[in-house]
Amino acid sequence: MRTLTTTILATVVGFGLAALNATARAEEKPGMVLKHIVMYKFKDDQKPEQVQEVVDTFAGLPGKIDAIIGFEHGTNVSKEGKSEGFTHLFAVTFRDEAGLAAYLVHPAHLHYVSVVKDRREKVIVLDYWTKE
Amino acid sequence: MRTLTTTILATVVGFGLAALNATARAEEKPGMVLKHIVMYKFKDDQKPEQVQEVVDTFAGLPGKIDAIIGFEHGTNVSKEGKSEGFTHLFAVTFRDEAGLAAYLVHPAHLHYVSVVKDRREKVIVLDYWTKE
Repeated sequence: MRTLTTTILATVVGFGLAALNATARAEEKPGMVLKHIVMYKFKDDQKPEQVQEVVDTFAGLPGKIDAIIGFEHGTNVSKEGKSEGFTHLFAVTFRDEAGLAAYLVHPAHLHYVSVVKDRREKVIVLDYWTKE
Repeated sequence: MRTLTTTILATVVGFGLAALNATARAEEKPGMVLKHIVMYKFKDDQKPEQVQEVVDTFAGLPGKIDAIIGFEHGTNVSKEGKSEGFTHLFAVTFRDEAGLAAYLVHPAHLHYVSVVKDRREKVIVLDYWTKE
């Protein structure tokens, strides 16, 4: 038979494990990955080589940040006229929210931000979960 | 020895083949696919079931349009505050520009457009080439 103390301890431990489990569920989803989409419209005064430096610096991040498990980028070729001036898109894939969080504070990413921040006129960032 | 007529014919055919080849190069890229990114901000008066109908109709297109060779969609979970109100993203993959062109005029896509057009407040469309 349980003593009162044992019962209280078991309850507390149970709640603790449930809370840990809830945290894990919020950060990772089995079979899913977290995609981080970044789009830019550059300022009109930007020279092609300044835009290219942004692209090259961003494209160098997968070699420097282990949390990046997938990377794509490209320039807009749509003829629908619905780009709102956005010309460049980057799609960065992470295992989970912890991977994205590690990326955002990584020194290589912070250096990238210092390169792009005064060259972009507009930026949009969307993250979404999708199947691997 | 060639006659003048044969030479002229060969020249005309040569230019024709070169033109066809240039067209093909503009429409497809070996080892690459064309990704079509669509993002929406829905109108404030839209009920969840109206937004869900848009999502479900879009998500039904891969089963109806052979030109679609890849499809992802998701809702924004970014905490960076750079989403500009866009909440939904769809990524549709095509083999080439001919695939995208076939999709845009496909009856199932035109029906989808009729569902979404009065429900969205903002839309952005970007297309980019990336490795398969």
